[in-house]
Amino acid sequence: MAQAHDIQKISTEDWDSNNFHDEQEHQKLEDIHTLPASEAQQTTTALDRPKTSNNLTNTRARLGLHPIAPIEEEHDEASHSDLMWPRIRLSLKEPFAEFFGVFILVLFGDGSVAQVLLTTGETTAPGGDGYGDYQSINWGWALGTMLGIYVAGDSGAYLNPAITFTNCILRKLPWRRFPIYFLAQFLGGFCAAGVIYINYINGINAAEGHGIRTVPPSKTATAGIFCTYPASDMTKAGMFFDEFIASMILMFVIFALKDDTNKGSFSASGAWFPLGLFFLIFGIGACFGWQTGYAINLARDFGPRLMSYAVGYGHEVWSAGGYYFWIPMVAPFLGCLFGGLLYDIFIFTGPSPINTPYMGMAKLFKPKQTVQQRLDQQKRDGIV
Amino acid sequence: MAQAHDIQKISTEDWDSNNFHDEQEHQKLEDIHTLPASEAQQTTTALDRPKTSNNLTNTRARLGLHPIAPIEEEHDEASHSDLMWPRIRLSLKEPFAEFFGVFILVLFGDGSVAQVLLTTGETTAPGGDGYGDYQSINWGWALGTMLGIYVAGDSGAYLNPAITFTNCILRKLPWRRFPIYFLAQFLGGFCAAGVIYINYINGINAAEGHGIRTVPPSKTATAGIFCTYPASDMTKAGMFFDEFIASMILMFVIFALKDDTNKGSFSASGAWFPLGLFFLIFGIGACFGWQTGYAINLARDFGPRLMSYAVGYGHEVWSAGGYYFWIPMVAPFLGCLFGGLLYDIFIFTGPSPINTPYMGMAKLFKPKQTVQQRLDQQKRDGIV
Amino acid sequence: MAQAHDIQKISTEDWDSNNFHDEQEHQKLEDIHTLPASEAQQTTTALDRPKTSNNLTNTRARLGLHPIAPIEEEHDEASHSDLMWPRIRLSLKEPFAEFFGVFILVLFGDGSVAQVLLTTGETTAPGGDGYGDYQSINWGWALGTMLGIYVAGDSGAYLNPAITFTNCILRKLPWRRFPIYFLAQFLGGFCAAGVIYINYINGINAAEGHGIRTVPPSKTATAGIFCTYPASDMTKAGMFFDEFIASMILMFVIFALKDDTNKGSFSASGAWFPLGLFFLIFGIGACFGWQTGYAINLARDFGPRLMSYAVGYGHEVWSAGGYYFWIPMVAPFLGCLFGGLLYDIFIFTGPSPINTPYMGMAKLFKPKQTVQQRLDQQKRDGIV
Amino acid sequence: MAQAHDIQKISTEDWDSNNFHDEQEHQKLEDIHTLPASEAQQTTTALDRPKTSNNLTNTRARLGLHPIAPIEEEHDEASHSDLMWPRIRLSLKEPFAEFFGVFILVLFGDGSVAQVLLTTGETTAPGGDGYGDYQSINWGWALGTMLGIYVAGDSGAYLNPAITFTNCILRKLPWRRFPIYFLAQFLGGFCAAGVIYINYINGINAAEGHGIRTVPPSKTATAGIFCTYPASDMTKAGMFFDEFIASMILMFVIFALKDDTNKGSFSASGAWFPLGLFFLIFGIGACFGWQTGYAINLARDFGPRLMSYAVGYGHEVWSAGGYYFWIPMVAPFLGCLFGGLLYDIFIFTGPSPINTPYMGMAKLFKPKQTVQQRLDQQKRDGIV
Repeated sequence: MAQAHDIQKISTEDWDSNNFHDEQEHQKLEDIHTLPASEAQQTTTALDRPKTSNNLTNTRARLGLHPIAPIEEEHDEASHSDLMWPRIRLSLKEPFAEFFGVFILVLFGDGSVAQVLLTTGETTAPGGDGYGDYQSINWGWALGTMLGIYVAGDSGAYLNPAITFTNCILRKLPWRRFPIYFLAQFLGGFCAAGVIYINYINGINAAEGHGIRTVPPSKTATAGIFCTYPASDMTKAGMFFDEFIASMILMFVIFALKDDTNKGSFSASGAWFPLGLFFLIFGIGACFGWQTGYAINLARDFGPRLMSYAVGYGHEVWSAGGYYFWIPMVAPFLGCLFGGLLYDIFIFTGPSPINTPYMGMAKLFKPKQTVQQRLDQQKRDGIV
Repeated sequence: MAQAHDIQKISTEDWDSNNFHDEQEHQKLEDIHTLPASEAQQTTTALDRPKTSNNLTNTRARLGLHPIAPIEEEHDEASHSDLMWPRIRLSLKEPFAEFFGVFILVLFGDGSVAQVLLTTGETTAPGGDGYGDYQSINWGWALGTMLGIYVAGDSGAYLNPAITFTNCILRKLPWRRFPIYFLAQFLGGFCAAGVIYINYINGINAAEGHGIRTVPPSKTATAGIFCTYPASDMTKAGMFFDEFIASMILMFVIFALKDDTNKGSFSASGAWFPLGLFFLIFGIGACFGWQTGYAINLARDFGPRLMSYAVGYGHEVWSAGGYYFWIPMVAPFLGCLFGGLLYDIFIFTGPSPINTPYMGMAKLFKPKQTVQQRLDQQKRDGIV
Repeated sequence: MAQAHDIQKISTEDWDSNNFHDEQEHQKLEDIHTLPASEAQQTTTALDRPKTSNNLTNTRARLGLHPIAPIEEEHDEASHSDLMWPRIRLSLKEPFAEFFGVFILVLFGDGSVAQVLLTTGETTAPGGDGYGDYQSINWGWALGTMLGIYVAGDSGAYLNPAITFTNCILRKLPWRRFPIYFLAQFLGGFCAAGVIYINYINGINAAEGHGIRTVPPSKTATAGIFCTYPASDMTKAGMFFDEFIASMILMFVIFALKDDTNKGSFSASGAWFPLGLFFLIFGIGACFGWQTGYAINLARDFGPRLMSYAVGYGHEVWSAGGYYFWIPMVAPFLGCLFGGLLYDIFIFTGPSPINTPYMGMAKLFKPKQTVQQRLDQQKRDGIV
Repeated sequence: MAQAHDIQKISTEDWDSNNFHDEQEHQKLEDIHTLPASEAQQTTTALDRPKTSNNLTNTRARLGLHPIAPIEEEHDEASHSDLMWPRIRLSLKEPFAEFFGVFILVLFGDGSVAQVLLTTGETTAPGGDGYGDYQSINWGWALGTMLGIYVAGDSGAYLNPAITFTNCILRKLPWRRFPIYFLAQFLGGFCAAGVIYINYINGINAAEGHGIRTVPPSKTATAGIFCTYPASDMTKAGMFFDEFIASMILMFVIFALKDDTNKGSFSASGAWFPLGLFFLIFGIGACFGWQTGYAINLARDFGPRLMSYAVGYGHEVWSAGGYYFWIPMVAPFLGCLFGGLLYDIFIFTGPSPINTPYMGMAKLFKPKQTVQQRLDQQKRDGIV
């Protein structure tokens, strides 16, 4: 977001003016209010603290991260870059945050499915009908996302590669961030599924039998704990459309919640954002959760799917539903992008590729030049 | 609200005083605090930015909107009115916002009904009893409203023509806004119902059979996904009363939540408003949702009803329940107006037609003059 | 609360000091931050606006209300006291607020019971099992209280005579407020029960038969919609204890939520208070709702009970459960007082009768003098 | 937290500088923003109010508490330390707060289990299926924790000895606080279980028979109301792992919610913290509540267990599940510590033993010296 500002400002300013430094100061202050929190601080930091260890800066830049780690100024003690582990942690701060964010998300999400699935109809439970019902699963994923965001923070990645991807295209998150965020998100889901498997292995054995692991539509299948399987009798197009629509809603509403210029949502972009996300994910689960299990997230679906394959659910994790597994990998990217475009086309008035001549399509005609310009700009801002 | 202030201020001020400009400045600042957010900004804008393209202003005025589009000052780049699409978007900003607000509202609301209805008793669901229960529908409509408000913002329209209507009568929202808001709200509901139909067409076919579409009280009816049908054995008066009471509560509580002068609710009028609305809609669904399905909103009921007619549910969508369909079109307007009057009569101390000589009925006796005065005032304020 | 401050301040200040006025100014500012919102404003008002109509002041004082109506300064137009109705409204502002607060509370609460009770087991509902379950009733009462507080505001009465009563004893709410608040609260519950009866009369007839109205333990009883009846096999002591404990928790937690000096809750005393109350009432319903239906409020129980008697449920509304009806009238007062004492004895450090010599019991030995002192003080502050 | 700051500051400052006092002033202001609220105020207080009664200070220090009671300055009237009871209350302020916090927590938690368990399948309930289901129990524990935190406040103890313990190790909460907090927490749980037993004794008699009290897996067992019993067929390792993982998540997310330097959570560390905790506990119950009943807290499990032993549930409260009772006593300590370490190792950048040379292990090699240093530091800060 801020970069677009910069371009416009710079092109209309007199670069020889005496008050250049003041302008820059003012710009930084403004950035702090308009940028996603972490990026804002980093930009400021880049200008203010040239003394940070060059090694660290280089490592982070090579990983695709902002050269300056996003930590509180008062914590940025020299010791942090002198000791080995803190230096590693600083190098990998955002990937660690994304890893643990998805880890928490999938622990709660898969955990809720496991508990409800494995205790279905258990009459010894208080209430006499299992330890939870379908709504518990809605709670699990919704509050898992909320608490995961509290852990991972506001990096533009939001625990979901499809959202990271859309932010790269429409909100100028540097593309170089994508690979390492993606890896961290995937691993978070993979590891959390492993913890859930270990935790509920007794119950899984009781439900399926020792050494037996099956996949829906088997009657005793427990593979649905880890990743999504489509309802029976769905067409491929139906599956794809369901995931696409749910992802579209996800991104559209997140852009609304994050849009400081939208009169209805500006209050949500700060402290209210995680709570808004709770309701959003709860709603997607309650309204679009039946047909494809609302994957809407490669990290939440493919990571645990791979883990379930690793622990022995067999080839069927891929072949079930007519090789359905690729749909929750692909549809969220397209759905999120579409939802983001929808928001930018019809509602957003801030800097977006849509809000430029030819609706941004000039860039399609001169791709090389566009990419170069953007990279140059990012380097000038010191964020890659 | 602000207009009433203006009248009083103006009549007691010396218009020849030297500090007129200061007064006006002060007035503007005050307005920003007392007006609904979007109107406040527009008023300020109207005085500060005379250079905005005349075309845009005229287009918006002709559509019944505030001449100045409600966007952030820093985004109000010339480019916005130079490029074709951004200009269209600026011209239709509020209608677009209302359209997508109702779109999101109905996607979640109708989606939750579809999921619960079509999976009733499905034993393969985790928990063994379908993908949700009646409470999921309460969640769907409540969080749909909440997230819809985050998208649409605080324009006085609130995703519901009956609320727009009441705000026109009691809160001086200009009547010229009504038609285009109404159209946008209706289309939002209409389109969302179409998306839900496409998304759940497999399930609808499975429940009813290919090509068969029925309406309650048919046992396999799926028309209830889209719009409301009354419980059996209801009298017309009972139906009307139920919708009337639910709409009355809706408007009464919204006025309380929006009343900055009410000691209990002032905290709700800002960031808390969407959350308050979540609880309000949840409550109406949990407490007044059985007999008529808590339509309380023409856009949410008539829009999807028309869509269900269009996709083939047949003439019964109109004739069911003894041509019940007009009740959720008419009762919300009367119920909301009554709820608004109740609040203004017994609680509200701010500017309202109630708080004037003869309780505003002077206006009934001199309707022409009253309308003229109000239009004059609105023109002076530059908001029509 | 503020009065206690005043006493201490006054006794340690030099009344002849030149900066008396400044002191007073400062005191007022301080009051605004430490007092319940409405009282704070009134105190300020009493000193600043001596011109308010004497009639109005006298009327309000005779009704037991603060002489100055708690309305926004900018709304306090002369017209408000010149026109008949606005004058009545100003005279009765707090009673109206309490009336409608309880009205909303009971509409949602009784409405949720009606809907769940009358549709129990209805297989045509989406989900196939009625329009809600016991949890819907928890939602209904909890969000009804939350929204009722938004309507009624922070007057110290809190929609419940037992809370008003405890605030009179422990938080220096003037006793003269009690009768009119009590009446308003009672009438609010009475009227709301009437609206619910009219709204659900079809369903009640369907459940019981035309003209038949029964009371638990009748199998088809619908009297439980309106007020509480105890579970079978309860002893009187058990019923009393249950209501007593639930009321104790209610008051204890409300005092915690309202205690600005408590590090954990200070954030709850402002905007968070209604939300905190939602969770509190939900919890009392989920944890103490079985045996006596968590009445914990005379206005919510006796008001609707009288209405149900009026519409024909017969003498059994009083005699059921061994003339149980008096327990939810008496136990909440004792329970709330006990809960309040518990909080003041063990946690509260602010002004309370407990935090005085002999733990306030000096007042027991000199009751006349104590009452006189308090009245004098209140008159000096201009709040009676 | 603040102590670590102090060390760094002090070692880099010129102690002879003239502006020492200003530095100190500034330090105090900073502390108020970075410290847990109560500790911050106490530090300030220690410097500002040397006149507080020495008796009180000594008593509190001997109990292991901060020498200065954490009360509002304006309430710190001499009278508080002159009157006997207020002096006792000041001496025991934090233990009282922890006691009542856990008391409220267990009242709601055990109360919800009691209501659901004792009314399982009761067809006379509205809805026809008991007074709540398993989700009601999730609500009960989650909102009990939330409201308990509102009562007990932000002392670093958080109603759970395992959290107190982890804060002592990783957040420099003085160890001397531990014993009295522990005792208060344990007694809170013990007493609340007694109240629940009295309140539901009719229902327990009805379920089990007079004088009969059994423990799972007995079919009519009611011991599960008070404390947790494992699901059948669990191995000891499985039980331990489940409690360990749930406690790990608890501590990890609490550290994230409390981390002011984490971009995602800083908004949660103030007013949002209790609400965040509601979702956290709800999630642990919905996702990890089946196998061991999510004890995750010695005070919530051992206290009520002892009470259930005292009222006659017999030796089986200890021997059930193969002497399972020690697992919810031990696993939470290890799980919380592990969760805290995980957060500090991978996310936290503030002062933690992890963020020091040799990852804090230098301290392992010189334990005596380390303990001495820490005590010296705490004395210098006046907090022990």
